[in-house]
Amino acid sequence: MIVHDWPAGPYPARVRIALAELGLRERVRFETVDLYKGEHKREAFRAQKNFSGTLPVLELEDGTCIAECTAITEYLDHLEGAPRLTGANPRQRGLIHMMSKRAELEVLDAVSVYFHHATPGLGPTVELYQNPEWGLRQRDRALRGIRYFDGVLRAQPHVAGEAFSMADITLAGGLIFAGLVQLEIPEGCDALAAWWDRLQQRPSVANRVALSEA
Amino acid sequence: MIVHDWPAGPYPARVRIALAELGLRERVRFETVDLYKGEHKREAFRAQKNFSGTLPVLELEDGTCIAECTAITEYLDHLEGAPRLTGANPRQRGLIHMMSKRAELEVLDAVSVYFHHATPGLGPTVELYQNPEWGLRQRDRALRGIRYFDGVLRAQPHVAGEAFSMADITLAGGLIFAGLVQLEIPEGCDALAAWWDRLQQRPSVANRVALSEA
Ligand SMILES: N[C@@H](CCC(=O)N[C@@H](CS)C(=O)NCC(=O)O)C(=O)O
Ligand SMILES: N[C@@H](CCC(=O)N[C@@H](CS)C(=O)NCC(=O)O)C(=O)O
Repeated sequence: MIVHDWPAGPYPARVRIALAELGLRERVRFETVDLYKGEHKREAFRAQKNFSGTLPVLELEDGTCIAECTAITEYLDHLEGAPRLTGANPRQRGLIHMMSKRAELEVLDAVSVYFHHATPGLGPTVELYQNPEWGLRQRDRALRGIRYFDGVLRAQPHVAGEAFSMADITLAGGLIFAGLVQLEIPEGCDALAAWWDRLQQRPSVANRVALSEA
Repeated sequence: MIVHDWPAGPYPARVRIALAELGLRERVRFETVDLYKGEHKREAFRAQKNFSGTLPVLELEDGTCIAECTAITEYLDHLEGAPRLTGANPRQRGLIHMMSKRAELEVLDAVSVYFHHATPGLGPTVELYQNPEWGLRQRDRALRGIRYFDGVLRAQPHVAGEAFSMADITLAGGLIFAGLVQLEIPEGCDALAAWWDRLQQRPSVANRVALSEA
């Protein structure tokens, strides 16, 4: 399988982490799509790989392309039987999908909009339209979201409950993106900071970029 | 179980349709949260039901709240064993989650942003911040998205392939929302229009609002 990828990207990181957690790293090879050249916005990429023009995209042996981190994670997590990242029963599955989506809406996607709309983003040849006011609102949303997840992590060790899951990976994507755009974790988010320290000790998270050179 | 709900809402429609398709309608009761009064934005609702302040929310017998249509659908679809809406093997699961997310990004969520930002939306007491320019961009994105799905439906009978799935329900939510805001399906989208006709013949879709009074 091929992962169309940008090695340092926060969304691609979600798939790199999932692959490592599931022991599937050897089953894929990474192909870089140059975001700063806008290769992901070209017509051929949108027609053949991902209509939405974003990375990552997982291309299966038969050429089928699966875009969207959540969908890719669903695919990978079911490859070898019982899911390990998306929940083993209805309740877990519901809570993990909810918390992962919430980590997108309230942190990761919000930071992404901030980056693309209220900073130079990928540069003027790629960012053809920017709405800085919207970008700044989304930055503030992300900061509120981070505080919310700090509260969650005061009550439980992982984002969706007791166990590590896709929801932790999504929030990790959010903090990776926050780091790239120099958005600091607000003061007093101690539970979140402790969780992030623990997470960065997992080899899947610590070695996610080096992974592609392995 | 309780569904915190707004009977005519396009997102709540996704859960109503899923419940009917799965034969689970008798297991829930609907409780209306008045969107036009902003009941979904109140502190208690956000703290106890859904931090993101949106409907629907599924409340389980033990008080656990599952928000986000995709997460609720995952929960419901796994309740009685083998999933019927979210895919029975890794490939189907990946494609259904991708197409459902794409139907959100490119149609349903885009129409929603248009409604909340470039029309009066839920009215001045609820819409405390509007960004009309962003709303209009998202309307145009939705129209492009509808054309994209027309292309998909020229090649296959359902949004994620041969079978009806969660992805059809999500796109249905998009068209329901488009209808509410009088956004017309562009000329020439015949495959999409034919699919929509077929979908509206399903009792789950046709009777979705009446459902709550059953
Ligand atoms: N909803 C997508 C978002 C992916 C995404 O935004 N990826 C970034 C790379 S880190 C991207 O392609 N950005 C380029 C752009 O938006 O122009 C997912 O979950 O996979
Ligand atoms: N991502 C959410 C979106 C839900 C949503 O936007 N629901 C609408 C009701 S149709 C809502 O609550 N809108 C009120 C608002 O945004 O103020 C989901 O998939 O459940």
